[in-house]
Amino acid sequence: MVADAIRRAEPPFVAADYANDGKHHVLLAASGSVATIKIPNIVEALSAHPNVSIRLVFTKSAINFLAGQSHEQPHVDTLRSFPNVEGIYLDEDEWAHPWTRGAAILHIELRRWAHVMLIAPLSANTLAKIVGGLSDNLLTSVIRAWDTTGEVEASTEAAVTGQAQVVKPKTIMVAPAMNTAMWRHRITAKQISILEDEWGVGKDGDEPGWFEVLVPMKKELACGDVGDGAMKDWREIVQAMESRLGLGT
Amino acid sequence: MVADAIRRAEPPFVAADYANDGKHHVLLAASGSVATIKIPNIVEALSAHPNVSIRLVFTKSAINFLAGQSHEQPHVDTLRSFPNVEGIYLDEDEWAHPWTRGAAILHIELRRWAHVMLIAPLSANTLAKIVGGLSDNLLTSVIRAWDTTGEVEASTEAAVTGQAQVVKPKTIMVAPAMNTAMWRHRITAKQISILEDEWGVGKDGDEPGWFEVLVPMKKELACGDVGDGAMKDWREIVQAMESRLGLGT
Amino acid sequence: MVADAIRRAEPPFVAADYANDGKHHVLLAASGSVATIKIPNIVEALSAHPNVSIRLVFTKSAINFLAGQSHEQPHVDTLRSFPNVEGIYLDEDEWAHPWTRGAAILHIELRRWAHVMLIAPLSANTLAKIVGGLSDNLLTSVIRAWDTTGEVEASTEAAVTGQAQVVKPKTIMVAPAMNTAMWRHRITAKQISILEDEWGVGKDGDEPGWFEVLVPMKKELACGDVGDGAMKDWREIVQAMESRLGLGT
Ligand SMILES: Cc1cc2nc3c(=O)[nH]c(=O)nc-3n(C[C@H](O)[C@H](O)[C@H](O)COP(=O)(O)O)c2cc1C
Ligand SMILES: Cc1cc2nc3c(=O)[nH]c(=O)nc-3n(C[C@H](O)[C@H](O)[C@H](O)COP(=O)(O)O)c2cc1C
Ligand SMILES: Cc1cc2nc3c(=O)[nH]c(=O)nc-3n(C[C@H](O)[C@H](O)[C@H](O)COP(=O)(O)O)c2cc1C
Repeated sequence: MVADAIRRAEPPFVAADYANDGKHHVLLAASGSVATIKIPNIVEALSAHPNVSIRLVFTKSAINFLAGQSHEQPHVDTLRSFPNVEGIYLDEDEWAHPWTRGAAILHIELRRWAHVMLIAPLSANTLAKIVGGLSDNLLTSVIRAWDTTGEVEASTEAAVTGQAQVVKPKTIMVAPAMNTAMWRHRITAKQISILEDEWGVGKDGDEPGWFEVLVPMKKELACGDVGDGAMKDWREIVQAMESRLGLGT
Repeated sequence: MVADAIRRAEPPFVAADYANDGKHHVLLAASGSVATIKIPNIVEALSAHPNVSIRLVFTKSAINFLAGQSHEQPHVDTLRSFPNVEGIYLDEDEWAHPWTRGAAILHIELRRWAHVMLIAPLSANTLAKIVGGLSDNLLTSVIRAWDTTGEVEASTEAAVTGQAQVVKPKTIMVAPAMNTAMWRHRITAKQISILEDEWGVGKDGDEPGWFEVLVPMKKELACGDVGDGAMKDWREIVQAMESRLGLGT
Repeated sequence: MVADAIRRAEPPFVAADYANDGKHHVLLAASGSVATIKIPNIVEALSAHPNVSIRLVFTKSAINFLAGQSHEQPHVDTLRSFPNVEGIYLDEDEWAHPWTRGAAILHIELRRWAHVMLIAPLSANTLAKIVGGLSDNLLTSVIRAWDTTGEVEASTEAAVTGQAQVVKPKTIMVAPAMNTAMWRHRITAKQISILEDEWGVGKDGDEPGWFEVLVPMKKELACGDVGDGAMKDWREIVQAMESRLGLGT
């Protein structure tokens, strides 16, 4: 993509450059589900807030859904034209600049930059990779490198400011989206429960975890089939993000 | 491959077109084990039944074993010439047609079409991916999207016919094949037992699962070594399929 | 790479050709961590022992760190010039020669050849793949095919020599290396404990397992942050290997 070539010619992205921009940093990611076509809606809604800054991460599969094949599926590069969209990152970008000692590492910089991460949609495959600890692409590397207690960033902060910090991890919100049969497979409940019960923020956001699962919706399909793996309505996902960030709508 | 180019020019495969063809639909898959070279034998034997329809799925690794490098390893495309072989599907085929809303999704169509699935050989790697819920290629996507209770397809059926259906999942038969040391690794027994004891049809086919494991055979090798990870003899695999389909031989 | 092209023109590597060379066979592997830049130091130190023979395996990610981008990051091919470095293997090499029945299989030959394996660094991703039983590249195929009891190789040996063998698995030493937050993620301890407590040789090397974990070091970083996922100092790793092989230094 042209946009990638341009970015590669630019200096690498460093989170510290944006530490004091006074904005909410939303890291928005999509994995390979049909619901990736809702990303333009989510981006448009979030980008309407002047104090929100957005960076996007896509898996290889996800970009297939935004290749300009229809009106509701514009090319992924067109998302740059929305206000407050600061960057779009693909797997190749980890190696856009050949790494030498001391250089910035993209998945670490994105984790540092993010105040909150939202994966919408979360595919069955990426769910399995997260739960299994796999990190074979940019998206899962960010997640694997998440500061799950908040201690790592707090101690770096404290060293800079000399002040004790409240230690709390930042949140990763995920919106699973899959075919009904995929969703009903026993392994789904097992893996979702690891995110919710073991690594989750809890129903009231008061547990020490870092995941929040936006459960799929049931919708009656034309054929009478109940499709219960469909991604939560994108408007509700945006609202969940807005209330988490304390943004009026 | 030429055959792929041809298929891409064709309209996408839709299971419903074959719902009433009166045939047994066998979805035959192979993953990256040396035993993939038995696929031509299995295809030849099954294709001799006029009321059996066969579609094939190969992983990227599996096709390396059928590249035309020897008499017993013909090129994968030559399998099309057997009667009743209706299609051969590779990972790229998921995206042969750029997906737009409402379009057919290959791994879902293959699952719907199949009356039974047979993975012979099942590699150690694909075994691990199945048990871990990973679905990063066509083969594992079909498996992850399997209707493991039968409810999804029964309810679609019921909506069409207005009649209550017997709810039972379709079966996935798997024939593991690996190096003796791979087979004896502790993790193999653990993963096979998930397929057999947690997700299995049971010894008498009376448990509510959907997997049936055709266990490897022990064979005394030339060197005196007992190779106990070798794929079950292909003739026994064909027989297991025939008796499951109620086919005389 | 030129070196690969050369190797492909050569006959395939067969372990039996080196069975009686009187050398310690060290299979040294690296996965995609920044600490891969220590591989040249490790190779240099081990290659100083005239009775040590070294073969190297790199993952696709690992070779990005040795692409000739700086003095301490020479191109991976330059490692061939060290004495006693007999081969460098990448994923493509599994298929350098189209496989026909009876042909050597690279990951099996490397496992047979090795008296000991050392993975330094072990990335978070490769750790997860090992624990999950995945084997989707050369490195993890060697590990998945490891003779974890020693019985497979002992029985082959016995058939050749007619003598009973002491049955003991060969060891895989691993030196994890990751970002502090990756290291502190709960899943790391869980996965490391499978290697140490379930599959490990034990603190005194007296348990029947085959893994030995060289735990990362804590180091006070410039910023005051304690980075506790850094790879154990390469000198200590070399020493651990030397004492295991009974080499004077
Ligand atoms: C047209 C199409 C639609 C798909 N829709 C979904 C989906 O809604 N949910 C899902 O989990 N997987 C879906 N898949 C399968 C995933 O794309 C596949 O498992 C892929 O490997 C996921 O990769 P990722 O998790 O790295 O993004 C779909 C595949 C295709 C070809
Ligand atoms: C020549 C050759 C033979 C192999 N034979 C086997 C085998 O019999 N069983 C197995 O589990 N893996 C075997 N492997 C390793 C797999 O091909 C490898 O793990 C691969 O990643 C599997 O991919 P898949 O599971 O996606 O098909 C072999 C590899 C090579 C190069
Ligand atoms: C510049 C750079 C440095 C990285 N350093 C590490 C590291 O030290 N440890 C780690 O586990 N992953 C690290 N990663 C992430 C891995 O490279 C990534 O998870 C990759 O998929 C691992 O592949 P492998 O396990 O097959 O080698 C780094 C990535 C980049 C781009």
